[in-house]
Amino acid sequence: MPQTPHVERHFTASEVVRDIVIGMSDGLTVPFALAAGLSGAVASTRIIVTAGLAEIAAGSIAMGLGGYLAARSDAEYYDSERAREQREVQTVPEVEADEVRQIFQAYGLSAAESRPVVQALRQRPTAWIDFMMRFELGLEQPDPRRALSSALTIAGAYITGGFIPLAPYMVSAHAATALPFSVVMTLAALAVFGFIKGRFTGTRPVRSALQTVLVGGLAAGAAFGLARLVS
Amino acid sequence: MPQTPHVERHFTASEVVRDIVIGMSDGLTVPFALAAGLSGAVASTRIIVTAGLAEIAAGSIAMGLGGYLAARSDAEYYDSERAREQREVQTVPEVEADEVRQIFQAYGLSAAESRPVVQALRQRPTAWIDFMMRFELGLEQPDPRRALSSALTIAGAYITGGFIPLAPYMVSAHAATALPFSVVMTLAALAVFGFIKGRFTGTRPVRSALQTVLVGGLAAGAAFGLARLVS
Repeated sequence: MPQTPHVERHFTASEVVRDIVIGMSDGLTVPFALAAGLSGAVASTRIIVTAGLAEIAAGSIAMGLGGYLAARSDAEYYDSERAREQREVQTVPEVEADEVRQIFQAYGLSAAESRPVVQALRQRPTAWIDFMMRFELGLEQPDPRRALSSALTIAGAYITGGFIPLAPYMVSAHAATALPFSVVMTLAALAVFGFIKGRFTGTRPVRSALQTVLVGGLAAGAAFGLARLVS
Repeated sequence: MPQTPHVERHFTASEVVRDIVIGMSDGLTVPFALAAGLSGAVASTRIIVTAGLAEIAAGSIAMGLGGYLAARSDAEYYDSERAREQREVQTVPEVEADEVRQIFQAYGLSAAESRPVVQALRQRPTAWIDFMMRFELGLEQPDPRRALSSALTIAGAYITGGFIPLAPYMVSAHAATALPFSVVMTLAALAVFGFIKGRFTGTRPVRSALQTVLVGGLAAGAAFGLARLVS
């Protein structure tokens, strides 16, 4: 069971953009909601900035390092599954040939119609293994070299996003003063980010912008209400 | 560009387990690190519990609602791509037939060897579209009904995980007293969780346990150090 998001073959966005989207979505939302929540419970911004920075450190490490390790595990999972397919192609070729027929049968093809493909694959063991990885197991070869740069991009985007809601609390000493600036700045940033994200992900940009603002606003509102309730 | 994690066809774990893994990984890690970080800066547990609850609210909403909306967008992306394939199969069947040939060419098959499959698909337009979705675009039909239950499972796992590191701070009034209990309880929970996760994801359980403990410990250590530095 791969733990990392599936990367599409037909790209509308580069992998770097995808990593920035993943990191910045949470980086803009969670530190924002935490700071807004604490504004409902404490007056001094010192503690809010401390909590915000601690959250940014924790969140970026959890997403970056966690993602890196998951990507490494996925690469190893791919390798072990590939080794298994290789064994099966060598030791039980009849079973594997039948699996190829079943793949095509799912699309209404008879054994006669898929026979030339089965026979062609049997003559090319390496291609056959690649074919089974993709068409039977639905697995694509992960690029182990990308795991590190991907982790750093996600963590960097999380940190960048997290500093936007925190900035007003760094400038002002009073939470009540900083909160409205943080809310306006972050919701604006979420709207711009959501709009751009929509262009890359194929969602209508205005709708994507409304969605990111909704998630951020709800998270911040819930955190604010909960913090006020318990403090 | 789908925004949600890719779901494998060959399951070693059910989709519910996968959602629990996603939610609990972050739920155990980030509130733990935040509470540990704040313990380096404030003495009273009241503010740490408030911050922790605000974080749990924010994180579970960001992951749950964010994931729900992303899954909805993915489902619409699939539908729009499917409509495009349908148009192409109807209006430019020669181009699509050539794309099928190219798919097989990547596995070393000649045009003659893939011809029976191409011809069979041309006689079954719906199967042909399904074939292109999966084998050309690498897209699998998302289940829109699963989006909501998946979001609730992820959010629930995040909340459940988040209460483990927070519990000692709820019981004790002093951060210095609660911190060691929180560290021991959470690292133990991360180890158990990582071990079980390893069994489901195909990573060696002991190694998976060490990794989740490492991520949680590093995140907490970084948050603690940073909070101490700025406070």
